[in-house]
Amino acid sequence: MTERRQRVLSGMRPTGKLHLGNYLGALDNWVKLQEDYDCFYFVANWHALTTDYAHAGEIPENTVEMLADWLGAGLSPERSTLFVQSLVPEHAELHLLFSMIIPVSWLERVPTYKEMIEQLELQSPSYGLLGYPLLQAADILMYKPRYVPVGVDQLPHIELTREVARRFSNAFGPVFPEPEAKLTEIPKVPGTDGRKMSKSYGNAIYLSDPPEILTPKIKTMMTDPARKRRSDPGNPDVCPVFDLHKIFTPDAPRQACATGCRTAGIGCLDCKGVLLEHLLTPLGAIRERRQKFMEKPKEITEILREGSKNARRVAQATMAEVRRAVGLAL
Amino acid sequence: MTERRQRVLSGMRPTGKLHLGNYLGALDNWVKLQEDYDCFYFVANWHALTTDYAHAGEIPENTVEMLADWLGAGLSPERSTLFVQSLVPEHAELHLLFSMIIPVSWLERVPTYKEMIEQLELQSPSYGLLGYPLLQAADILMYKPRYVPVGVDQLPHIELTREVARRFSNAFGPVFPEPEAKLTEIPKVPGTDGRKMSKSYGNAIYLSDPPEILTPKIKTMMTDPARKRRSDPGNPDVCPVFDLHKIFTPDAPRQACATGCRTAGIGCLDCKGVLLEHLLTPLGAIRERRQKFMEKPKEITEILREGSKNARRVAQATMAEVRRAVGLAL
Repeated sequence: MTERRQRVLSGMRPTGKLHLGNYLGALDNWVKLQEDYDCFYFVANWHALTTDYAHAGEIPENTVEMLADWLGAGLSPERSTLFVQSLVPEHAELHLLFSMIIPVSWLERVPTYKEMIEQLELQSPSYGLLGYPLLQAADILMYKPRYVPVGVDQLPHIELTREVARRFSNAFGPVFPEPEAKLTEIPKVPGTDGRKMSKSYGNAIYLSDPPEILTPKIKTMMTDPARKRRSDPGNPDVCPVFDLHKIFTPDAPRQACATGCRTAGIGCLDCKGVLLEHLLTPLGAIRERRQKFMEKPKEITEILREGSKNARRVAQATMAEVRRAVGLAL
Repeated sequence: MTERRQRVLSGMRPTGKLHLGNYLGALDNWVKLQEDYDCFYFVANWHALTTDYAHAGEIPENTVEMLADWLGAGLSPERSTLFVQSLVPEHAELHLLFSMIIPVSWLERVPTYKEMIEQLELQSPSYGLLGYPLLQAADILMYKPRYVPVGVDQLPHIELTREVARRFSNAFGPVFPEPEAKLTEIPKVPGTDGRKMSKSYGNAIYLSDPPEILTPKIKTMMTDPARKRRSDPGNPDVCPVFDLHKIFTPDAPRQACATGCRTAGIGCLDCKGVLLEHLLTPLGAIRERRQKFMEKPKEITEILREGSKNARRVAQATMAEVRRAVGLAL
């Protein structure tokens, strides 16, 4: 007899092709979780509208690109439910019902709300931006997951989600168990200019970068700025390239690079060559799988449609319970 | 060839059985609109949660009571589409999409929002209360009606609905024509104590009141407070009973009552007797039809289910357009 696996749920906004920061911050972990959990992963395409509805037209293409990365990285539709938020419109209904029981002040206090307004210099934040943690709560609770893998910045949202579950229970009875945050250890992933890797900084290394693009990106990547000449000793602790070594290069060659750097025994280009040795193979494997899917975008669409059907079955069962509990069944 | 009739849409919260104020303020007008328009009338059961989710359990029963009044008053499922908001979950999806393009400041400025907070002494208004004019916009625009019959207090909501339609068009293309408000002339309908008729004041005359309840309600109804004795002349202009005369009693007997009152020619009980003569027959007809439906609540449910199916077909067609326009079609 097989024991029923605990459920995990997470989502990602379809911003297009993913970079190393996205991969190491979430996707890589999602792939590993498939081993032990019943995983639900979704394309948060409604969330993509909260801050930038003017570019909504790019969402379908971005979805396909992102899915190619998911599949290339090892997410499997046989093992996980991969779906699209907007193809399970029950999320909107649950969001609406939650909106009736959650004080607007709770949402005004969510730290990411004010941060986003400042960061994006929004003159008039939308009602949907204010409510997006509540949409997230609906996205999550709909599937009654045991765990939600998140980075530390998302912890307030999980706490809100748990509060929504409790408040719903108090008002209408126990439909939603409280999920727990599963903190993802996120390594430091610098971009080519040494700042945090980000699409908007133009410093990103993409999972889709072929070797002829990846190699020069690494070769021109910023290193310890104090090491001006080949003969100067460097400091790996402040070198962005070394941050990537920590992720990709095994202990022995990495230690050798560190020692070589500190003693000026090797130059930065040598050090980058070692990194490339250990970077090109795993990224190449992802890129090749990704490429195969990109050649058959209809297959990607099909995977999402099928996954969304599965997700919707779960969502419909939850909503039947919810409507009964709230008193909306006729 | 029959010309396609213009569409009208309106909704009502299911607060239970309706009183004369509800009837004369909206329902009576709805019945008349059936003559010339393709009417969509809905039970706003999600809206019922915006201010009082603690009593959500009463919504199903309240819905049946209200529908009995609708049908008793002459709304006909053969002529109009009578449906339930929550049975057309597409409203929630459209509401969510609107939430992405509408600044939260627009909603904070809606006059009814602050009024409701003050009136109901709400300590912590819900996110859904803030957003309810946007849900209303979705309720309306979904069916692309030409007219929305409203009272003057609802005009700001129709203006917001038109702004939402415009903003959506600017962002994603012309899906929603702007509906127009159709102002309902609402007569003054005082309750038995002379204040505005309201369920919460306990001064209401219900469409469901049988003669043995209706008659004493009228007989003990407040009149001109300055007319203390039978021999005092009275002033119909400040008499709540006379406000009801204006609605129910034809010119000649009404004038006779007014003259009799001003000259102390008749007493208040005489005047009320005349009112009852003209009140009992039309209300009796409504009550009898209502009663027949209340004896078959399953028929009411069936009417709503069928109507909701019709409404949903329209809603699904609109949402297919919307998803294509926004860029969420896969």
